[in-house]
Amino acid sequence: MTAPNGRTPMSQQKSKSRHHGSCGPIPKAVVSRLSLYLRELQHLVREGHETTSSSQLGKVLGFSDAQVRKDLAYFGQFGYPGIGYRCAELIDAIKRILGTHRQWPVIIVGVGNLGRALLGYKGFQQQGFRIVAAFDVDARKIGRRIEGVEIFDLARLPEIAEQHNIKLGIIAVPASAAQTTAEKMVAAGLVGILNFAPVTISVPPNVSLVGVDLAIQLEQLTFSVINRLAET
Amino acid sequence: MTAPNGRTPMSQQKSKSRHHGSCGPIPKAVVSRLSLYLRELQHLVREGHETTSSSQLGKVLGFSDAQVRKDLAYFGQFGYPGIGYRCAELIDAIKRILGTHRQWPVIIVGVGNLGRALLGYKGFQQQGFRIVAAFDVDARKIGRRIEGVEIFDLARLPEIAEQHNIKLGIIAVPASAAQTTAEKMVAAGLVGILNFAPVTISVPPNVSLVGVDLAIQLEQLTFSVINRLAET
Repeated sequence: MTAPNGRTPMSQQKSKSRHHGSCGPIPKAVVSRLSLYLRELQHLVREGHETTSSSQLGKVLGFSDAQVRKDLAYFGQFGYPGIGYRCAELIDAIKRILGTHRQWPVIIVGVGNLGRALLGYKGFQQQGFRIVAAFDVDARKIGRRIEGVEIFDLARLPEIAEQHNIKLGIIAVPASAAQTTAEKMVAAGLVGILNFAPVTISVPPNVSLVGVDLAIQLEQLTFSVINRLAET
Repeated sequence: MTAPNGRTPMSQQKSKSRHHGSCGPIPKAVVSRLSLYLRELQHLVREGHETTSSSQLGKVLGFSDAQVRKDLAYFGQFGYPGIGYRCAELIDAIKRILGTHRQWPVIIVGVGNLGRALLGYKGFQQQGFRIVAAFDVDARKIGRRIEGVEIFDLARLPEIAEQHNIKLGIIAVPASAAQTTAEKMVAAGLVGILNFAPVTISVPPNVSLVGVDLAIQLEQLTFSVINRLAET
């Protein structure tokens, strides 16, 4: 895949964020690597870099340069011969692919410790997500504001979701309430749900669901630790 | 890869959790799928199932049966002809591979909203992780207990890490304090760090680092949502 001069083969044309159309689904792993490339590009821009290469991007993330090029090739050609990738342009292209070039209003259901932590999580706002309302069933919480976000009675979810044209919701309720919360979100017109409750939930086929299992990250860490320990 | 009778080719021997040795590194994506298989197997056992198949495991997780078999083949042969996988046995084998067949004591640094949420997160304990101590620099928090876990002065990290033989730590401090926190963890002998701060940190090569970027999960969701919306 590497040209004889060791350079990445690139299009002479200005790169286009040509969107992947009907050529089959993009593997989930590719989409999740796009987020990693995006973070690294944002980091490079903050450090004053204007351009980068597939090998630089790959190296810091632990992927080969061929992997980086292959992943990006699903969506178009983004490099320039003799230059590499223009960071700002590739950031813009990846954000368009991921859909985060525009701001998404998001609601959260469940204002316990996790809900509060998510309301204060700076990483969401940085990437174009704005939590516009929180919901709970605890009367003592309703009407209060946390991190500037008002807490509403869960019964008002349909009304407020419609008012703000909300498509995305975050579940931060206990496991036992997760399924009914998801059903209320779907009934309120939401089409994307991020579930932090440590339980499997089901949604209709037209709704996207991503489950966040924080223990998975720790398991990846123990695997890495014991395999390093085994080496030494 | 499928035998003529449509069955998965399986070893006649009792499955062994033969550990992957010197045949090159296992792809990270394989290791992260092991966690997903483990969760689904635990779910099946709770529902009373004693056995399962690669196609059943794959179907519910959205992978092909060939993918499931290929992933597990990195680590040994776990199936029985005419039976499939014995859930309890495969759970045990995957836990040994991931290193979670034993309990890991974990410490957490930073007891803000996120730290408190993590102290109360049931998913860690379920998978063999026990948070044994929390640390903060805020004198008003030191000496208190949250979810039964005592909060210590961060200055006592080396002493308490040694006392409990702690290898794993969770960073739940603000982004600006994440790098120095990581350095203190490394100095205290920790070899695995889970970083929740929305910032890139660096650690020595002998230390494993997993960064949790919660916005990535939302980006995966927007990608999925906009691509479904485009279809309709």
